[in-house]
Amino acid sequence: MTTQAPRCVALSGGVGGAKLALGLARTLLPEDLTIIANTGDDFEHLGLTICPDIDTLTYTLAGISNTETGWGRGGETWQFMASMEALGGETWFQLGDRDLATHVERSRRLASGETLTGITGDFRQRLGIEPKILPMSDTPVRTIVETPDGPLPFQHYFVREQCAPVVTGFRFDGAADAHPAPGIAEALAGDDLSAVVICPSNPFISIDPIFAVPGLRDMLTAAKAPVVAVSPIVGGKALKGPTAKMMTELGLDSDAVAVARHYGDLLDGFVLDSSDAGSDDAVRSLGVDVLMTDTIMKTLADKERLAREVLTFAEKLGNSSHG
Amino acid sequence: MTTQAPRCVALSGGVGGAKLALGLARTLLPEDLTIIANTGDDFEHLGLTICPDIDTLTYTLAGISNTETGWGRGGETWQFMASMEALGGETWFQLGDRDLATHVERSRRLASGETLTGITGDFRQRLGIEPKILPMSDTPVRTIVETPDGPLPFQHYFVREQCAPVVTGFRFDGAADAHPAPGIAEALAGDDLSAVVICPSNPFISIDPIFAVPGLRDMLTAAKAPVVAVSPIVGGKALKGPTAKMMTELGLDSDAVAVARHYGDLLDGFVLDSSDAGSDDAVRSLGVDVLMTDTIMKTLADKERLAREVLTFAEKLGNSSHG
Repeated sequence: MTTQAPRCVALSGGVGGAKLALGLARTLLPEDLTIIANTGDDFEHLGLTICPDIDTLTYTLAGISNTETGWGRGGETWQFMASMEALGGETWFQLGDRDLATHVERSRRLASGETLTGITGDFRQRLGIEPKILPMSDTPVRTIVETPDGPLPFQHYFVREQCAPVVTGFRFDGAADAHPAPGIAEALAGDDLSAVVICPSNPFISIDPIFAVPGLRDMLTAAKAPVVAVSPIVGGKALKGPTAKMMTELGLDSDAVAVARHYGDLLDGFVLDSSDAGSDDAVRSLGVDVLMTDTIMKTLADKERLAREVLTFAEKLGNSSHG
Repeated sequence: MTTQAPRCVALSGGVGGAKLALGLARTLLPEDLTIIANTGDDFEHLGLTICPDIDTLTYTLAGISNTETGWGRGGETWQFMASMEALGGETWFQLGDRDLATHVERSRRLASGETLTGITGDFRQRLGIEPKILPMSDTPVRTIVETPDGPLPFQHYFVREQCAPVVTGFRFDGAADAHPAPGIAEALAGDDLSAVVICPSNPFISIDPIFAVPGLRDMLTAAKAPVVAVSPIVGGKALKGPTAKMMTELGLDSDAVAVARHYGDLLDGFVLDSSDAGSDDAVRSLGVDVLMTDTIMKTLADKERLAREVLTFAEKLGNSSHG
């Protein structure tokens, strides 16, 4: 047993990841949690810089998200969108009236030379969030989805085309020149780190862009804490989004084992949903420890329970590696 | 009597001018009205290009303005502003959720290289407005208010400082390099032009910026139609805004005669409110014909009646100059 409170770094995309991030935020001391957000699905739209995963994390942790959809803001209205339509503007990406303030103010501050890290930190503090939310990089990285009909910017694939095109691969434009955002190295350093948690996000479009930032994956490998991923695949299906469809198109099994295999050497532990009980041996055969539990997070209590279980699992892995 | 319908060019600022512009739009054939809008009070705010007078004219003529305030949109909501405040953004300039679409889409199109004339024309057509609304120029011109404490960008003076600073003068940044917008020369050319109407707008901050565009005032002087201004001062007071206060600070009488004197040689006719009956001789002594009528436009019927009277007045002036 450690005598101090666990300290954790979480990697997250949007909706699914943000659920566990909220659980972690309600379990850990605020100063002991740092969330690294995917920015590969950020994009420029209507002259604004939109950062869907940072915003979903921020709204979720601030308690102002739309709890029905998991993305966007609660109590949202759509007058801007209706007026855009009347003016002939693009309306395929839904921007609520409340949400829009985030994009307008962030874009203004980016244009004035501020960093995404600084802006994200200021927004979360103004919204009363204590744990740190860090973009993976201040350098723009843009996920491009390769399809048989050519490359598609991520949001065009994801929102405009509703994930219909067949995926043949991904590239992360700008990643080669990106650096991990300030604060990431510090968060991952130190003997007191208890866990690196890969939230139940899409490995290809939410987590791989984070790994594509040069140096970041090495920092994870070097971290003095076990790396534990929570499967985004439950019972062979993605709870949210195109993960399973994408895996099939990429020629992978669309199951939790394939997710564990995708993360490979990085993993010390993998959290499988109880409905995937048959897969635990296959994951263990990869040299990865397994925690089997209910990973579906419907209620706040579910999120907190899963967060506690993941942290306890990581603690055990940490103790055994030190033992 | 002319046998054809009158053709008219109107010069206008925001609220007061837009009322008469609406009256003219409901009186003339759509193809016979061109409105030249002041862009001197345009400004860049939150990364957006905001054109208050163009927008007031557009919303008014489209029947979607806030009829209480005269500016902004009817049925407006303020979720964006409330969210901006929570994020620590600037909130001194009110941007409604509906209104915001205009600024975001215009800014996007300007950034992509489109002209303000083109965008304004497209917006008005999409909103069902048939008469042309032209910005005075596609080149940005920015009204700067000179005060004892230094220069203030117009909207800082007008909205943020609520017109409190003493005005010592104006300058129109960018005007020297500006050109009249495409369509203005054509609208002012031709023997069939019946009237140039200077709407009841503030002469210093709504009309003078238009005159500051090199060549534009000469086009008005050369036009084959009488130039008729409607006084924005009624009974020694501005119906709206800081006109009277401004005139006092500039050392002028704050009366309708001073407005007529300000426009000077340009004027053929001046429309005085009946409550300023004592001023008509003073205006006539400037060599300017006078129409005395009720110029307060509360109802749509008021706007239409005044528009008809102004056009009939201009027609008489045109006939007498030809006679």
